[in-house]
Amino acid sequence: MNKALGIDIGGTKISNALIDNNGKILNEVEKISTPKTVDEIINILKNVISKFEQDIEFVAIATAGAVNNQNTGVIGSTANLACGYKDIDFQSLSNKKVFIENDANAAAWAEYRIGAAQGYNNSIMLTLGTGVGGGIIINGKLLKGKNGAAGEMHFAMSRNQKRKCTCGAWDCFEAYASGNGLRQTGVEIFQDENITTYDIIERVSNNDEKALLTLKTWQNDIALGILGLNNIFDTDCVVLSGSMEKFVDTNEIEKFVNENIVTTPTRVFHAKAGNYAGMIGAVLLGNEFI
Amino acid sequence: MNKALGIDIGGTKISNALIDNNGKILNEVEKISTPKTVDEIINILKNVISKFEQDIEFVAIATAGAVNNQNTGVIGSTANLACGYKDIDFQSLSNKKVFIENDANAAAWAEYRIGAAQGYNNSIMLTLGTGVGGGIIINGKLLKGKNGAAGEMHFAMSRNQKRKCTCGAWDCFEAYASGNGLRQTGVEIFQDENITTYDIIERVSNNDEKALLTLKTWQNDIALGILGLNNIFDTDCVVLSGSMEKFVDTNEIEKFVNENIVTTPTRVFHAKAGNYAGMIGAVLLGNEFI
Repeated sequence: MNKALGIDIGGTKISNALIDNNGKILNEVEKISTPKTVDEIINILKNVISKFEQDIEFVAIATAGAVNNQNTGVIGSTANLACGYKDIDFQSLSNKKVFIENDANAAAWAEYRIGAAQGYNNSIMLTLGTGVGGGIIINGKLLKGKNGAAGEMHFAMSRNQKRKCTCGAWDCFEAYASGNGLRQTGVEIFQDENITTYDIIERVSNNDEKALLTLKTWQNDIALGILGLNNIFDTDCVVLSGSMEKFVDTNEIEKFVNENIVTTPTRVFHAKAGNYAGMIGAVLLGNEFI
Repeated sequence: MNKALGIDIGGTKISNALIDNNGKILNEVEKISTPKTVDEIINILKNVISKFEQDIEFVAIATAGAVNNQNTGVIGSTANLACGYKDIDFQSLSNKKVFIENDANAAAWAEYRIGAAQGYNNSIMLTLGTGVGGGIIINGKLLKGKNGAAGEMHFAMSRNQKRKCTCGAWDCFEAYASGNGLRQTGVEIFQDENITTYDIIERVSNNDEKALLTLKTWQNDIALGILGLNNIFDTDCVVLSGSMEKFVDTNEIEKFVNENIVTTPTRVFHAKAGNYAGMIGAVLLGNEFI
């Protein structure tokens, strides 16, 4: 049975595990805090790779940031990672082939191959976390765009410059549908600048009216964004993943979307491929290219 | 030289012409008013087809409405066409092969093959007319979605239910970026329910301040929508076509988009394939399938 080394490089952690070509994790996932410099990141990767290199077919990396269409490196700067990260020559770190994909794209691929979107050739995965990630599958292929940067969920939900987005533009879907978006909606509804996402979720569990309205407003914004995406893509399904997706009622979203859709009815699912969908998806995707 | 019969079926006119496999129109385009019943539409198609059938390789139809992934018929109802239009068996109207595609998709294909998007494998065409049409090319292929309905430019530009869209939902891109969107923006700025798109354009030519503001606001909305589409698709270019595109400054839009983009810089062009891009694109696309 062939296996690969899966690595997930995020802003806070670098995780790794051996993964077989069915997407099964074969050992305990190792997690290391992401260091602040590129040299330290490279050292961690070298150590991890050298430990497993002899036993694996290839190295598959899911990373924050847009990945080029050759799946060899990152393009542009990556917000949560050290300056210079984009200049890393990942292939130079191993004698085996190194395959790289954006983490949200890789996770979307995992959902398509072994998760909630299995059997659906046209799907969108949205990762609702601190921000919002996106991965789009069209006719069984990942949407990459001209330079590999496609799938960014930064489309405006307002014409009136209400919320500055992390990307620098105004009112992106991410600024409403993310955990941080929930917080900002809470700030507006509670008229309290200091309210946190955690506060809101806690108050929801106590049936606090304003907290319930905040959650409902946040979910309506997510549904509105998904409606637009479905009119653009005519998907089979939308999969929601990430730390915030458990607070979403997928049935309510699906109902809203299908009541308002211009294209044809879709499904909305919770993700199934688990916390390590990124590195699993990178391995499954790498399998098809290598 | 091979040639096909191109037919464009729209809400007001049914046009036809002989078109060669380079997309060149070979005779004078004939235009017939679109009748109100399906039987009359079928009769017109039969007459046109029988006139040219012996000389052509196939029949290519660009039509209003979403076209299935087999390119044989329309799915769902089509707003501006007779009830029952979706049940027409187009292939039964000719002994030659009949190929059908949505008019905006077909026009996008014409722009890609012989127009403004030539040489760009990732492009979006937006038709700014009474409404807004869309056709999306990804890696040199038309985006169709699970049932062929993809490319609908109905994504929300507001969370606050400001404008009802023709599709029944609220605040779609079409409700802002279309000719009718320009009119509604004018109604808001002039505080005059009766102002028309024509009035606004006429006052623009007289440098009327409110009219200039209306046009600028309308163009900003178009730019905001294009920004979102580029973050989703990472396109090479966006092509603007339709009766309203001549009022748009593509350089200003391109500048705004590239100043705010999360993915990688794109281009914004005026369309080049002309008024008959729909039927030309249907022929060029049919060439690849037949």
